[in-house]
Amino acid sequence: MAKWTSFNIAFIGAGNVAWHLAPALENAGHVVKEVYSRNTGNAKSLIKKLYDAEVSEDLDFSQSEANIFIISVSDDAIEDIAQEIVLPEGSLLVHTSGAKPLSVLEFAAADYTGVFYPLQTFTKERKVNFEHIPFCLESEAKEAEKIMHQLAGSISKNVQLIDSKKRAALHVAAVFASNFTNHMLSISEEILSQTKLNQDLLKPLVAETIEKSLMVGPKKAQTGPAKRGDLETLDKHLEILQDNEGFSEIYRIVSQHILDSYQ
Amino acid sequence: MAKWTSFNIAFIGAGNVAWHLAPALENAGHVVKEVYSRNTGNAKSLIKKLYDAEVSEDLDFSQSEANIFIISVSDDAIEDIAQEIVLPEGSLLVHTSGAKPLSVLEFAAADYTGVFYPLQTFTKERKVNFEHIPFCLESEAKEAEKIMHQLAGSISKNVQLIDSKKRAALHVAAVFASNFTNHMLSISEEILSQTKLNQDLLKPLVAETIEKSLMVGPKKAQTGPAKRGDLETLDKHLEILQDNEGFSEIYRIVSQHILDSYQ
Repeated sequence: MAKWTSFNIAFIGAGNVAWHLAPALENAGHVVKEVYSRNTGNAKSLIKKLYDAEVSEDLDFSQSEANIFIISVSDDAIEDIAQEIVLPEGSLLVHTSGAKPLSVLEFAAADYTGVFYPLQTFTKERKVNFEHIPFCLESEAKEAEKIMHQLAGSISKNVQLIDSKKRAALHVAAVFASNFTNHMLSISEEILSQTKLNQDLLKPLVAETIEKSLMVGPKKAQTGPAKRGDLETLDKHLEILQDNEGFSEIYRIVSQHILDSYQ
Repeated sequence: MAKWTSFNIAFIGAGNVAWHLAPALENAGHVVKEVYSRNTGNAKSLIKKLYDAEVSEDLDFSQSEANIFIISVSDDAIEDIAQEIVLPEGSLLVHTSGAKPLSVLEFAAADYTGVFYPLQTFTKERKVNFEHIPFCLESEAKEAEKIMHQLAGSISKNVQLIDSKKRAALHVAAVFASNFTNHMLSISEEILSQTKLNQDLLKPLVAETIEKSLMVGPKKAQTGPAKRGDLETLDKHLEILQDNEGFSEIYRIVSQHILDSYQ
């Protein structure tokens, strides 16, 4: 495999990750040659954001000018695509999933395989600045590692080698830090709405909570009745929540865990 | 009670709330006359940040020039202080607690009582800008309501009348939105640290998660395996967490609640 500085890339998948990653890579001087999506409409939308990319109708890339093939599809579809895809010689095949190990690519007919995982939550509507997004890379081949490092390093200052086992734990941590924090905000929103209180009331509190937590660390930033061991308030809150079994259970379990953590 | 534009204030309590609120009120043109704290050292530290305030050695304010008395002590101490404090005629006594009802002041020998609750998390080390902090006010007297409105309005653009029952629900919502989100970050931090992964790895994800949630609303912003109904990943995550009973329980309960909420 030659040492490139500008890479030719193909995307398999035109979802949230590809939507942001493909244009960012082109801005850094790489070229996206093809985009494949099971939903051709998505591929067509994505190539409109790219310089000269074409829609690939199938997974036969034997005639492709690309050297790097990025699979960014839903987790469950990666393994099947890896087995089906036809690649030119000397190509590197990577996936962008935090949850899936490198081994889901083991039966692919690629010379090199790797994981190219940008640790961020992507939505089409929200602009993404890749500069500070950690890229977690993994490969069994030094050569592939080096190429992924160059590729990720061309758009992000934060590139890390992380193996599948650590990445799995990282993904669990990300569920707590992102999905579960967001769900706590959903519950809070629902309580406000049931009480006919304005949703904006808690926004300054949330913003400051997270800013403080990121600055001084969550252990030091923890406040509230459970942290203080204020059992009277905990009881009062459970009474307020008594008509909602789901909310009460989460309140009880999380408060108990905070009580136990700070005794 | 006369109509002031600049108020004379006394603080009972020199903790996190008073630490930020007293100087902010002075910057808005009010005068803090006295500060009382069970811990005299705290009162002495606070008056150093104020123009001409004195430390009050006890709760006898009969000779005080202040008209507004702000109790900002721990929730459990409010009721006792309200019963013990001696006030000059025509004075307004308020507390700053989100958790306690107005009625904890009912046995105070004050002409007017009220709740003056700034909805934010305060830490001495972190600077506070009151402009966007919601002030939740409550009183049974229109006169007192008007004065609190003027006082709060002199430092914040967000002043609301909220009764004790709604404030109690608001406080529960704030526990989910602030204390519980922060605890999710603590768990995430612990998983990273057990896996010997850098704490900074998840910071861009957390910042974007919250920014997105505040912008589009948490329901629309929810992502992750539970939201997608990806049971395979949930099982894998529970396996990774199996040695930590507390983490597994929270993971299971919150994921189940997300599954149920988005079916």
